[in-house]
Amino acid sequence: MKLALAQINPIVGNIEGNTQKILSNITQAKNQRANLVIFPELAIVGYPPRDLLLKPSFIEQNLDALDTIARTMPDGITAIIGCIQKNTLQTGKNLYNSVAVIANGRIVSIHHKSLLPNYDVFDEQRYFEPGPIVTLARIDGKKIGISICEDLWTLQDVVGRVLYHHDPISTLAAEGAQIFINVAASPFVVDKHKIRRKLLSEHAKRYQLPLVYVNQVGGNDELIFDGRSCVYSPSGELIAQAKGFAEDLLIVELNGNTPSRIEPTTEGVQDVKNALVLGLRDYVRKCRFDKGVVIGLSGGIDSSLVAALAVEALGAEYVHGIAMPSEYNSPSSLADAKQLAENLGIDFNVVTIDCIRAAFDSQLKDIFAGREPDVTEENIQARIRGTILMAMSNKFGYLVLSTGNKSELAMGYCTLYGDMVGGLSVINDVPKTLVDEIAKLINSEREIIPENVFIKPPSAELRPNQTDQDSLPPYEILDPILKMYIEEEKSAEEIIEVGFDADIVKKVIVTVDKNEYKRKQASIGLKVTSRAFGSGRRMPIAQGFKQFKR
Amino acid sequence: MKLALAQINPIVGNIEGNTQKILSNITQAKNQRANLVIFPELAIVGYPPRDLLLKPSFIEQNLDALDTIARTMPDGITAIIGCIQKNTLQTGKNLYNSVAVIANGRIVSIHHKSLLPNYDVFDEQRYFEPGPIVTLARIDGKKIGISICEDLWTLQDVVGRVLYHHDPISTLAAEGAQIFINVAASPFVVDKHKIRRKLLSEHAKRYQLPLVYVNQVGGNDELIFDGRSCVYSPSGELIAQAKGFAEDLLIVELNGNTPSRIEPTTEGVQDVKNALVLGLRDYVRKCRFDKGVVIGLSGGIDSSLVAALAVEALGAEYVHGIAMPSEYNSPSSLADAKQLAENLGIDFNVVTIDCIRAAFDSQLKDIFAGREPDVTEENIQARIRGTILMAMSNKFGYLVLSTGNKSELAMGYCTLYGDMVGGLSVINDVPKTLVDEIAKLINSEREIIPENVFIKPPSAELRPNQTDQDSLPPYEILDPILKMYIEEEKSAEEIIEVGFDADIVKKVIVTVDKNEYKRKQASIGLKVTSRAFGSGRRMPIAQGFKQFKR
Repeated sequence: MKLALAQINPIVGNIEGNTQKILSNITQAKNQRANLVIFPELAIVGYPPRDLLLKPSFIEQNLDALDTIARTMPDGITAIIGCIQKNTLQTGKNLYNSVAVIANGRIVSIHHKSLLPNYDVFDEQRYFEPGPIVTLARIDGKKIGISICEDLWTLQDVVGRVLYHHDPISTLAAEGAQIFINVAASPFVVDKHKIRRKLLSEHAKRYQLPLVYVNQVGGNDELIFDGRSCVYSPSGELIAQAKGFAEDLLIVELNGNTPSRIEPTTEGVQDVKNALVLGLRDYVRKCRFDKGVVIGLSGGIDSSLVAALAVEALGAEYVHGIAMPSEYNSPSSLADAKQLAENLGIDFNVVTIDCIRAAFDSQLKDIFAGREPDVTEENIQARIRGTILMAMSNKFGYLVLSTGNKSELAMGYCTLYGDMVGGLSVINDVPKTLVDEIAKLINSEREIIPENVFIKPPSAELRPNQTDQDSLPPYEILDPILKMYIEEEKSAEEIIEVGFDADIVKKVIVTVDKNEYKRKQASIGLKVTSRAFGSGRRMPIAQGFKQFKR
Repeated sequence: MKLALAQINPIVGNIEGNTQKILSNITQAKNQRANLVIFPELAIVGYPPRDLLLKPSFIEQNLDALDTIARTMPDGITAIIGCIQKNTLQTGKNLYNSVAVIANGRIVSIHHKSLLPNYDVFDEQRYFEPGPIVTLARIDGKKIGISICEDLWTLQDVVGRVLYHHDPISTLAAEGAQIFINVAASPFVVDKHKIRRKLLSEHAKRYQLPLVYVNQVGGNDELIFDGRSCVYSPSGELIAQAKGFAEDLLIVELNGNTPSRIEPTTEGVQDVKNALVLGLRDYVRKCRFDKGVVIGLSGGIDSSLVAALAVEALGAEYVHGIAMPSEYNSPSSLADAKQLAENLGIDFNVVTIDCIRAAFDSQLKDIFAGREPDVTEENIQARIRGTILMAMSNKFGYLVLSTGNKSELAMGYCTLYGDMVGGLSVINDVPKTLVDEIAKLINSEREIIPENVFIKPPSAELRPNQTDQDSLPPYEILDPILKMYIEEEKSAEEIIEVGFDADIVKKVIVTVDKNEYKRKQASIGLKVTSRAFGSGRRMPIAQGFKQFKR
């Protein structure tokens, strides 16, 4: 049996475009003599469609598209296509997350997802009814056990606590499946791929069956899908792997003599960088910002990294840098920003902000009479810069990229409507210490980010001689505390037990909690850790939980 | 049997404070010789706790609080208290949404919620395992059928499509319940109370049993709980009703001779106004903004209404008005704003923005050379005002109230980081036509909002002679289209069929869709309709769904 794993990058909701993409992949697969071509979860509408699923017209268009594909595709090949189906029962959610098996102009069978993830960024129980029974598909005389994404996240020894009470994979095996096929849209999280591979391998080995895994690729808002569709042998060995972070059509002959393509696996920092580039590129492309992006370049490491990632994602001509110095910026900051722009080959403008700040000061003088300068005046500077970036966006049609990192956002060390402005926050799920690592990786072949940017102490430069460490613990201490508190939901007590200073831990926790209101209004950020600020973390704002006695 | 319905207003997460409130209500109930005192859903932690539920320490503190209440409360009275319990099974979500029946120092029984809402603003399947079986409680020799909120939203003829496959109320009846008790945290939506009453009455009548309903009251972030706890007789008649939009302890003698208190029921515009006042007051209070709020007063109807609501919620001394005129504002705008402030008795400042705008213009002159003025310059003005409001917040500790209405927010007729700044958007779920109605209601006793504010055509006043209707259809046409599209998920075709102009409908839909990115970064708004922008509407941003052929 010759399979084609069609690892496509759909645009959410663009049913017409996705349908064309699916048809073109079917034709390519057929041309390569595949018997069966397999698409990712919800391929027709793209994942995650979110509340578009509540529009009846959206569901109808998706069903029409499935018909179109069945009628239009070439004969002599079977396709497995992720789509939405309606639940015709009187009760329950009115949709299923399904796949259709289609061949020779008609729908052969429909299979529903049984296990519906409803944690972190997932809301599938908001829309879908769990599939009532698991049924095998018959394709070319073989019994195929088709499951959808979460359906195979059931092995306690690999994934930890299992959130479901039954295991569709074991049912498919018991029914006599000869091949497992799982179609997925599994979002990237750094090093989650290791767990995924273990899970796939274990399932194959446990039932002594080949397992075919087809994952979506591409960025859709905050989520990045890394692809890396693959096939495991009945002994649990990886025998084929598609590209990471790019579309691919991988041909695999099951039980054939021709060895399949196995693309190299990347990990860690390299993966995060690839994910950010893909997520950035797709957000800009899918939102149709044809004019590219604008970035405020401070000469610091965060904006330098974002500019470098943007050039890799979009090309230098679509990236526009602007420096907005004030009297509090060291001259070297401007020089570093200029050098970076030169190294990247991007457009670079300078707008000084002191006279605008002076205008605000003079208009607020009377109201603020008798009060000392404080964070108010610092924030005004940041907001002037935000206003200038947005003016560039309005005038030239650029998307503003926000450049704050996760450590800052966690601690509220950022100005709402100031440095937080922008349509996409590229590194807001990247802790500061990881920002440094990615920046070093980018510089590993040649100096793109000027060396001085790495050496100088991080600073917001909003008052004379300010550095981040005036307000924050050193990042080497802060980042692990934040990881335990945010990603692992550890209590103050547990973090202190690991060996961190109790006062620092408490201060960090209080600061994270009280800055929830800023994150509420943050732009979309690209998720790369197991818990990003964004749709996967839903905290109340007006709340009074005390983690510890103060 | 003498019941006390303890309609409390908890602060989400403030377990210590909520526990004190519960204990004090138990004592009051005991003093009034009640046998049983009943608290709302999740009373110990407040509803909705959202992702605080993912913190193991949060769950433990909630269990400790339950123990404290059991140990501390007076003997001779039973209490029913909403709390979180742990699921000790190996699989499934690890929590239950439960109530504990406690008396004489110990926990008598625990009952879990069976039906977990996971639509609109609700995410209960994110956290909770559905209760496996329904069991009766025994209190003072009576068999009590306890259910939790959604458990009784099962009557198809009242609520429409039923999302669940079983009906806990019929099970409780079949088990021999003699009284129904439902503890709830049911968020306010205008006129939802009518459906709720019908539902409660139907259940009582159907099983010929008294039904006691205890609802939470108060604002928690975007959600407002209207209280109005009540009791229905076995014939489905309302025999007791607690206050709307305020805490209450309602004493009801079941089968007694003393008639119970029935607070008057309000509806429609009056309810929306009450809800907004409560939501505003609680957000300010629960976020501890002791210094009050600041509002940019434009002399328009939206900001006038928000100021009037704020004065009702907080008192005039906690409301600070600021007008920020430019050369494009008519002199009457400033006069109207001033008159409003005088009528309300609030603090009023004026800061002109022309010289700040001039400073921006001069700094951007070179970069913008050769380009005509456009929306860029309009937005700069709005962002200067946003920056001034935030400066007032930073300097004096005021919360900025955002004053945009739902019609504007739907159409993106607002400036991100400009008039959209603020911690709370008071009327962003109120369509413009309803804004007018509430404003008229406020003026019904005496003129608070100057008459001229109602008469002049709505305008953003960002360029000479601008009015809203240059960019938007008349609000009498726009608002019903928006309601059908957003609240009812109607397609363009269906809306056109109702009789609206096809070009206008299509333009509205395209405009709503393309402004999703602005709403992503909007502040929290108070929900009063069946579908608010906020956590109950989760739209992708980078998406390509086409509602119709263009």
